Parts: sequence; structure tokens; C-alpha cells
Amino acid sequence: MPRTGRRPGYSDTREAILTAARQAFAERGYDKASIRQIATSAGVDPALVHHYFGAKEQLFLAAMEAPIDPGKAIEQVVAGGLDGIGERLVRTFVTVWDSPAGTPAAALVRSAVSHDWSARMLREFITTQILRRVIGNLELDPNEGPLRASLVASQLMGLIMARYIIKLEPLASAPPETIVATVAPTIQRYLSGPLDQ
Amino acid sequence: MPRTGRRPGYSDTREAILTAARQAFAERGYDKASIRQIATSAGVDPALVHHYFGAKEQLFLAAMEAPIDPGKAIEQVVAGGLDGIGERLVRTFVTVWDSPAGTPAAALVRSAVSHDWSARMLREFITTQILRRVIGNLELDPNEGPLRASLVASQLMGLIMARYIIKLEPLASAPPETIVATVAPTIQRYLSGPLDQ
Repeated sequence: MPRTGRRPGYSDTREAILTAARQAFAERGYDKASIRQIATSAGVDPALVHHYFGAKEQLFLAAMEAPIDPGKAIEQVVAGGLDGIGERLVRTFVTVWDSPAGTPAAALVRSAVSHDWSARMLREFITTQILRRVIGNLELDPNEGPLRASLVASQLMGLIMARYIIKLEPLASAPPETIVATVAPTIQRYLSGPLDQ
Repeated sequence: MPRTGRRPGYSDTREAILTAARQAFAERGYDKASIRQIATSAGVDPALVHHYFGAKEQLFLAAMEAPIDPGKAIEQVVAGGLDGIGERLVRTFVTVWDSPAGTPAAALVRSAVSHDWSARMLREFITTQILRRVIGNLELDPNEGPLRASLVASQLMGLIMARYIIKLEPLASAPPETIVATVAPTIQRYLSGPLDQ
């Protein structure tokens, strides 16, 4: 595209904020990154960051280019408690990833895996936006919760890899019900079963 | 590096063969790719390909830059049959990936995930070098074997992602015994349990 010569405008500022945010989230982690520091890096007022993106969580989702906000879906899944959570979680997961939102989400994972900084962003995303919510809402034992949640993440990331990225058959073409029936018991055990049998 | 002006030698020929091989395996798949066609693409005699790399399987491992030949490890794991296979498989898997060979292996997965053609190579690798051996050696029901094997692959790829690439805690730093204790039952169920409970 030819340079137009106009002064930095809305979209330049927005991009500058997102670039500063990606760097901050990757380097400092979600919890330690601050809107104030991101604004300083981008050379704008913190109020402008809030104005464009809202709170830190929304800025993070925008910086990740997340095609969906996992918060709502997770809240519905965990609302029913541990009983049957394996089935609810896998069904919701497959429904979202099989939908049109799955294509940009898979692209996001592919890119995250290939670069160190974006792998750190993805880790922050999974930890703060997904696992922390699951652990908190299900009131898992604090000694076991993080391990249980990261085991769940491992199976779900593997499902993303096998079904949507590497496309291993027959898993890639299996009907959603087959995925639910076969994978839900794994998730259920990781969250509510004994961890060693 | 400065151009030396010398005629194509051993390492140029070797690289030309590997490049042709990667293209052939990605485009045609492992089974349909042939040494003869790869040699033609590389502009060399098929005998030279055999001389440099051995059989098609070794050429494939070289083209993948695979840090280990999974064949031997898998043979030992499946030799004991289905009884206890979850524990043997996860223990071997974690031992290899925690070893120095794990670093180039993780780099291979990262690169495979980020490019379409190398994702196809990885799929061929997993399918022909790993899953096919597991299914064949364990004599799984042909109607269920491929699904069982791809479910196993999904959990193990997820473990690679969570423990070695994204480095999700506490899974990334957990002792090998914790991984074996928690993940082995999943693998065992995918291979020998009922598929829907």
C-alpha cells in the first residue's frame, strides 16, 4: 500500500497499543503487565488505551486476536459443577472449534507455537483466561487444581493439534459425538477422578 | 558464506535429495512417494539415494530431521501387549522427550505446526512410523484401531505442547513419575478400554 503521508491516526495508534501490549504480556506476563506501562511504551495516554480497548482483559484478547472470548463459554461449562463436566467441556470445545471461529483460532495456535514470544502469550492466555477460571469456579483443591487443569489443557491442546492442525485421521473427520464420547471421560478423570489410576 | 565456485559435491547432492524427498512426502504422502521419483526430482540416480540414505523409511527420517528413530522404542513398548501399555508408553515417551533429543524434537514440531507442508509431513510421520506400528503390533480391532491410535496421538501431542513447547505449569516441571501416573490411565483406556465411558 502506498504511504499516504497523513499523520498517525486511529488505526496507527491502535496498532501501536497492540504491539506494546503483545510485548508487555509476553515479557512480563498477564498479571504484571499494566495498562499504564503499555500506554507509555505506545506513547499514548492510558485513558486512550481504556477508551479503545476497555479493561486489561479485553486488551489482552485483542492483542491475542482471539476470535472468541472464552470467558462466557467457560462460565456456562463450569456452572454445572464437577458432575458431567467432562462431557459439557468437550462438547462446548468441539462446537467452538468446529465452527467458523475455529479457523482463526487454529491459525493463532500455529503462530503461537512457532515463536517464543507468542508461545509465552498463549501460555498466559491459557493460564489466566481459561485454567484460572476453571480452577476457581470449580473450587478445586488448591494442591491439585493447577495440575488437574494443566492436564485438561494438555488433552485439549492435543485435540486441537490432531483434529484441526495436523489433521490426523480418523480423529480429524470424526463426528463431534465421537469426540465427546471418547475424550469426555479423560477430562472428567483429570478434573474429578483420582490422579493416579 | 562466500560462494566457493566449486561444482556440486556430496553435501549439495545430499541436500537436493532431501529437498526433493520433503516435497514428495508432503505432496504424495509416505506410501505413494517413491525413491525413483525423488531421485528424478533431485536429478540423481536412484542408486545414489539408496547409497546415501538406505531405504525409504531412513530417507523419510532424514528428511524429517528426526532426532530419534521411533521404531525401536515403539517395538519395545508394544512388545508387552495391551496389559500395562499405558504406563510403558508414557514412561518411554517422557524419558525420550525429557532427554537431550527432546529439544530438536520440539523444534521439529514447532516448525511442522507453522507450515502446511511440514504439518503434512508430520502427519505422515505420526501415521506411518508410529500409529501404524502401534495398531499392527497390538493387533487392535481394525474397526477401532485407527481411532484408538489417533486418540493416543492427541494426548501425547498435547503433552508435547503443554510440557515442552508452551510450558504450562505445573505440568512443565512435574517429575516424570507424575506424568506417568496421571496420563498412563488415559492412554490405557484409549487403547484397551471401552471407547465411550
